[in-house]
Amino acid sequence: MNEPSTGRLETFSDGVFAIAATLLVLEIHVPAPGESGLGHALLEEWPSFASYVVSFAIIGIIWVNHHAVLDNLARVDRTLLFLNLMLLLWVALIPFPTSLLATYMREGGADERVAGVAYTATMALMGFSFGWLWRYAVSRGLLAGGLSDAEVRARTRNFTIGSPLYLVAMLVALISAPACLVMNAALAVFYAVPGLGQMRAPSSQA
Amino acid sequence: MNEPSTGRLETFSDGVFAIAATLLVLEIHVPAPGESGLGHALLEEWPSFASYVVSFAIIGIIWVNHHAVLDNLARVDRTLLFLNLMLLLWVALIPFPTSLLATYMREGGADERVAGVAYTATMALMGFSFGWLWRYAVSRGLLAGGLSDAEVRARTRNFTIGSPLYLVAMLVALISAPACLVMNAALAVFYAVPGLGQMRAPSSQA
Amino acid sequence: MNEPSTGRLETFSDGVFAIAATLLVLEIHVPAPGESGLGHALLEEWPSFASYVVSFAIIGIIWVNHHAVLDNLARVDRTLLFLNLMLLLWVALIPFPTSLLATYMREGGADERVAGVAYTATMALMGFSFGWLWRYAVSRGLLAGGLSDAEVRARTRNFTIGSPLYLVAMLVALISAPACLVMNAALAVFYAVPGLGQMRAPSSQA
Amino acid sequence: MNEPSTGRLETFSDGVFAIAATLLVLEIHVPAPGESGLGHALLEEWPSFASYVVSFAIIGIIWVNHHAVLDNLARVDRTLLFLNLMLLLWVALIPFPTSLLATYMREGGADERVAGVAYTATMALMGFSFGWLWRYAVSRGLLAGGLSDAEVRARTRNFTIGSPLYLVAMLVALISAPACLVMNAALAVFYAVPGLGQMRAPSSQA
Repeated sequence: MNEPSTGRLETFSDGVFAIAATLLVLEIHVPAPGESGLGHALLEEWPSFASYVVSFAIIGIIWVNHHAVLDNLARVDRTLLFLNLMLLLWVALIPFPTSLLATYMREGGADERVAGVAYTATMALMGFSFGWLWRYAVSRGLLAGGLSDAEVRARTRNFTIGSPLYLVAMLVALISAPACLVMNAALAVFYAVPGLGQMRAPSSQA
Repeated sequence: MNEPSTGRLETFSDGVFAIAATLLVLEIHVPAPGESGLGHALLEEWPSFASYVVSFAIIGIIWVNHHAVLDNLARVDRTLLFLNLMLLLWVALIPFPTSLLATYMREGGADERVAGVAYTATMALMGFSFGWLWRYAVSRGLLAGGLSDAEVRARTRNFTIGSPLYLVAMLVALISAPACLVMNAALAVFYAVPGLGQMRAPSSQA
Repeated sequence: MNEPSTGRLETFSDGVFAIAATLLVLEIHVPAPGESGLGHALLEEWPSFASYVVSFAIIGIIWVNHHAVLDNLARVDRTLLFLNLMLLLWVALIPFPTSLLATYMREGGADERVAGVAYTATMALMGFSFGWLWRYAVSRGLLAGGLSDAEVRARTRNFTIGSPLYLVAMLVALISAPACLVMNAALAVFYAVPGLGQMRAPSSQA
Repeated sequence: MNEPSTGRLETFSDGVFAIAATLLVLEIHVPAPGESGLGHALLEEWPSFASYVVSFAIIGIIWVNHHAVLDNLARVDRTLLFLNLMLLLWVALIPFPTSLLATYMREGGADERVAGVAYTATMALMGFSFGWLWRYAVSRGLLAGGLSDAEVRARTRNFTIGSPLYLVAMLVALISAPACLVMNAALAVFYAVPGLGQMRAPSSQA
């Protein structure tokens, strides 16, 4: 148990990622009948659909990068296991700020911006936990040999860049919640597109 | 990560399929006590039961065909990974239009038809994403060698036939929501029955 | 795809079993504050706890027996895949009749008995689907060689015995919902205890 | 089936652990708009966040220790399978007492302490089931050879110590629900930190 396998870690993590992504749909509510027509009501629910898409994409991309990090590990120790649990704690929380943002983007005003900050803060804390896990793995020599020093540094840099970017996203949230949602989506794309901020598995180094 | 394994993709996808299918039950509501008798109330909930069965069958059949497609892949690239995420985004959304249709089939009127269109549109977008994933895999040479050119063309044709059929289903929704639900069920059967629109794994070519 | 592997079938099925069992908890509602004391309110919720325990045990036992059946299969064909989907459709539905029974056992009267019949009917349909799957596997020669003819007949008989027992449970439901819950629990124990109605894997024939 | 594999047991158990942990988020409710400001409303929801974190950590740590126990098993028998189902029954229940505690920590008074006792009782019953499973495995000789007698006794002692500690936590709950939540978190840490109460896999004995 002090030295659990990577594969086992993946199974539990994959479960949390898949369930968190699929639970997002519960925040989209069926409009109550008898209002101004269902078509109109569905259009007014656009914040629910927009935040569903962005949160689903974020969870999907983090899942992809999570696997890339685990693929680079030669072994796992007990501390890394708990750093991973902390990361999953934020992943599993995502349906809540998603629902919060969807609800308050329909309300507008100061509350809308509070919801945007809460949404971005969750993503930032998730990114921070992920970066911590990565730095711990590097510093304890848990990495497999497939990565060059330059590649390891490039990945560490990508995690480091995340912090100021999330701070910018929080400032954006103070101005406009929809703009903050777009900013979070852009951050996800940054971590998704090769050559920008993504992880690569050893197999791609061949 | 640029070349993630097929197996890993299956685990996450299987999770989303299984969770989306099982979350469908949450749209069936326990009737409030004290009304006109529970037996009567349950009978009036037939739209919930009918849409539960159809959506469950659709997710189950897509899951079967999804595996058949993945079995035909020799490898997976990053773009295919994101096309798969887009497919899963629609799969995970299914509980929402299912609940929408079940609610508004009890209401009737114009809203019922809007709900039918929304339900069919979700299925059409899922089918479209699936077809895109397939065409991408064919065009990039990601297929394993087990399929003949004629078989590949037959499958591409099956995906292509889906688009006009889903359009017909949307037109049907404009006339009658129950008829549209039947049409969606028929489309699922079309993709389920061998010789009609289904995928087959390499093992069946032996 | 026409010949999907047993392992793949297990992964999806296990997901549905685990999710359906874990979703059961959502039917236990937190009592609204400010009533006659939380301790008292929790005691009055005994039907929710009782039906949670019985439904969880039923899903757990069916999961155990489902694995035992799959272990006895040499191969899987497309029809068996859809018979399995039908079985899972009933498994995934279980949270609904569980919630129904828990709600109406607090109401009493005729509705309570309707809820008991609905609960038992779901379990009976699940058992019927499972028996159909088993008989199909036997008749199509899908079984591995590990079972003697006598053992196959014993299992078929166990499935056959289920039908009249579920009918008795439905008659019991017409008299008393709590008694019907006890009867369903007893049926689960019948299918759980070796020598009564359970499945055994080839390994136990050594 | 009488001798199911450890791996199969892990898959189903991992599913229940991951789903229960991820369902916890559903107990955090989006505050209704139009009250005293969203920032204030979120701060008042601290019991929901605190109990989310503690319950998530408890499930995560039990998951880690569950794997450590399964790793030490050479084989699994039918009784152990049902002892494991009983353990999972408590794990899957956790979202309910978590929601109960979060709701009543905002109410205060006697009900708050009842909720604390219910929360601690669930964790105690989970710990008791886990200890029962462990003692059964030891007494039936299901353990693999990797553990020395001293190590087996040390683990049995850790399970035994749990019972009086949970009793203390229940007494604490009678005084203060927040203190009881802290006590439960401390118990989780006790079972998480090496050298205190955790399990170790055979690999760590090398």
